[in-house]
Amino acid sequence: MIPNLAPDIALAGRLFDELRERSFDGVGVTREAYGPGEAMAHEVLRREGERLGLEVSSDFARNLYVTLPGTNRAAKRVLLGSHLDSVPQGGNFDGAAGVLAGLAALAGMRAAGFQPSHDVTVVALRAEEAGAWFPTSYPGSRAALGRLRPEELTVRRRDNGHTLEDMLAAAGGDPEAIRRGAKVIGPENTAAYLELHIEQGPVLDAEAIPVGVVTGIPGSRRLRHGHVQGEYSHSGAVPRRFRRDAAIAAAELAFRLDQFWGELERHGQTLVCTFCELATGSQAGFTKIAGEVDFSLDVRSIERSRCDLVFDELNRLIEEISAHRGVTFRLGPETSSLPALMDGAVVAALQNAATALNITHRTMPSGGGHDAAAFAQAGVPAGMLFVRNQNGSHNPHEAMRMEDFALAAAVLTRFAATFGA
Amino acid sequence: MIPNLAPDIALAGRLFDELRERSFDGVGVTREAYGPGEAMAHEVLRREGERLGLEVSSDFARNLYVTLPGTNRAAKRVLLGSHLDSVPQGGNFDGAAGVLAGLAALAGMRAAGFQPSHDVTVVALRAEEAGAWFPTSYPGSRAALGRLRPEELTVRRRDNGHTLEDMLAAAGGDPEAIRRGAKVIGPENTAAYLELHIEQGPVLDAEAIPVGVVTGIPGSRRLRHGHVQGEYSHSGAVPRRFRRDAAIAAAELAFRLDQFWGELERHGQTLVCTFCELATGSQAGFTKIAGEVDFSLDVRSIERSRCDLVFDELNRLIEEISAHRGVTFRLGPETSSLPALMDGAVVAALQNAATALNITHRTMPSGGGHDAAAFAQAGVPAGMLFVRNQNGSHNPHEAMRMEDFALAAAVLTRFAATFGA
Repeated sequence: MIPNLAPDIALAGRLFDELRERSFDGVGVTREAYGPGEAMAHEVLRREGERLGLEVSSDFARNLYVTLPGTNRAAKRVLLGSHLDSVPQGGNFDGAAGVLAGLAALAGMRAAGFQPSHDVTVVALRAEEAGAWFPTSYPGSRAALGRLRPEELTVRRRDNGHTLEDMLAAAGGDPEAIRRGAKVIGPENTAAYLELHIEQGPVLDAEAIPVGVVTGIPGSRRLRHGHVQGEYSHSGAVPRRFRRDAAIAAAELAFRLDQFWGELERHGQTLVCTFCELATGSQAGFTKIAGEVDFSLDVRSIERSRCDLVFDELNRLIEEISAHRGVTFRLGPETSSLPALMDGAVVAALQNAATALNITHRTMPSGGGHDAAAFAQAGVPAGMLFVRNQNGSHNPHEAMRMEDFALAAAVLTRFAATFGA
Repeated sequence: MIPNLAPDIALAGRLFDELRERSFDGVGVTREAYGPGEAMAHEVLRREGERLGLEVSSDFARNLYVTLPGTNRAAKRVLLGSHLDSVPQGGNFDGAAGVLAGLAALAGMRAAGFQPSHDVTVVALRAEEAGAWFPTSYPGSRAALGRLRPEELTVRRRDNGHTLEDMLAAAGGDPEAIRRGAKVIGPENTAAYLELHIEQGPVLDAEAIPVGVVTGIPGSRRLRHGHVQGEYSHSGAVPRRFRRDAAIAAAELAFRLDQFWGELERHGQTLVCTFCELATGSQAGFTKIAGEVDFSLDVRSIERSRCDLVFDELNRLIEEISAHRGVTFRLGPETSSLPALMDGAVVAALQNAATALNITHRTMPSGGGHDAAAFAQAGVPAGMLFVRNQNGSHNPHEAMRMEDFALAAAVLTRFAATFGA
């Protein structure tokens, strides 16, 4: 018999307001990974956990855990989490929604006098947005999962040059534990990791569906420092056949790769392919043919093979364009990540919970990356719930209706109370 | 009977060296319009004119004239000229070659004891490269031709905000004369204006021809502030059908307009079409879809109707791309100039002179704009000689072999001695 549990949405609403107010930067919110904004948010969670009489602890990477003990403390726990940091001038909901939904669930269980059979733990994972500062991904969750490599401690913040190790130590963490290979979360002690998050795209809003059950997180192949080298010359005096125009070469590459993507989509091969930045070089100017272009490229798909198809086409186009336009392409270092499928049992349980609660939902892939990918890759059954969102994410206009949040939090609460029970 | 006149190439060589040495900026040469570098070069020309016993004078716009009197002082004179200013960090030959070739011709005539039937005047025109500093073109020659509009005196330098009027007055000129509509050069007193100039493109070098006889200077249609407005959003989370990607829209426009240009060229319609600058906006970044692109476009042709064809296609493409990519284009203000044909009799005389001297040459359009266009538009028969050049122009690597310069100067000298005689 499943109790009629209601998450404490009013509590979440008050805490959203407090977080926004205390991390507003004049434009959006800024809660830097291992910085003061993130620390403030963790303190708020700790305070509320203690106020609710829950167990509060943290690990060597300064991830914070707030636990409602289950009747069987030896049973695998259910983790409800996300992150409390943000990109610079970001939105208030990206990350915080998942943590506050978890806390609202525990508060609702407390208020109902409900004790689950297993521990239910809200986790605030550190530094999910670290990519905005550090050239690494998910250091908080990967540390807890024992999967942060010691050499990653030496990566430096792009702006001030501080290492991840310095930042972690300054926040009270223990870098030595990472060197020792310490691990606090794994499939041996965790039944599931569930992350509620605002959808970062427009799909749910466009389809008028409040809640999404995520099937997987895409893998990627990425070029951050692509370069086209042509030759600067006089835009009036150099006839077509003598040109080595980097701007047109880059435009041809971008346009034709986009056409290829369109072809794949028409054949049902979902992916995304984005020239995020594309710019003529610093010496470019009016009445000059552009001799240089810099570009970045982000290709993602749930199916790694589709990223490979795009890169195969990229290389084919580069060969062709180089030959007929007299330019050279340097792709620079490539980074990549593997796709992460959400756990089938978790997905099914989320769908069942939504259906039981009569909440309109759809299954969908994630577009962005999330800590849930790190859990899935570590063998922890992972799932995600998306909340309909207006105006995208990573910007101050990011939006989420509290009634949509309440629906997703209700699914999360039911899942947490029942999964594996 | 045409005397065997040889221009004084050694003199020109010494003066090239002096100019370079006295205007070297550490990278290239900088001789700002109405600034100290240009003033220095004018002083060198004045000094050498006086040393050779020639008549030296200047006008209200501070253009400098060095004249070898003819036997008939009432006959229309032949002007040999170009400019002595340069772009910042430019090359030593762009402009100076035309003035020093003229001076070498007069020195050669003096050395041979030759007096032409008409005055032959070397003119150093001010501020041909003013476009690098001021949003105006050919203020020096247009002032002398009585075609600089008074309102153009108020244009301001982009860097320091000084007006053209201030700069002109500080250089000893008389802005009031421009307001009065003063004019010192016109078809009534000038048989021809001949400008020797380095070719700013690679055509002569590629074809192993030392000298070009110019048939015309292209007109242009130009956009300096084109803008594509899309929407910044998450490169992972926003599926293809929801995107408003300004980078791909701009790439499509640039690539397809370039394809259209290629089609015109295959049908023998010579022109140039250059996206000089094309760059995603300042908010662009990795993992974002680009919401903005800025671009500039420079279209030039000897036939104005070909520029119009390109702009018609531009507008057609913009309509199509806007519709299917959900972006908007703002073209911003357009500037344009009319083509200027070189005078048929001048062109024929230059060809005849080169043939008589057994100098390999070809006729060709100019790519860049030159003071000769202002003369042609004022009804003064104008012509240009191009000297084979390596490494383009407007850069410190600009090159010219003195033996090629000597060949072109020989054609110029013969033309000056005989045209209209």
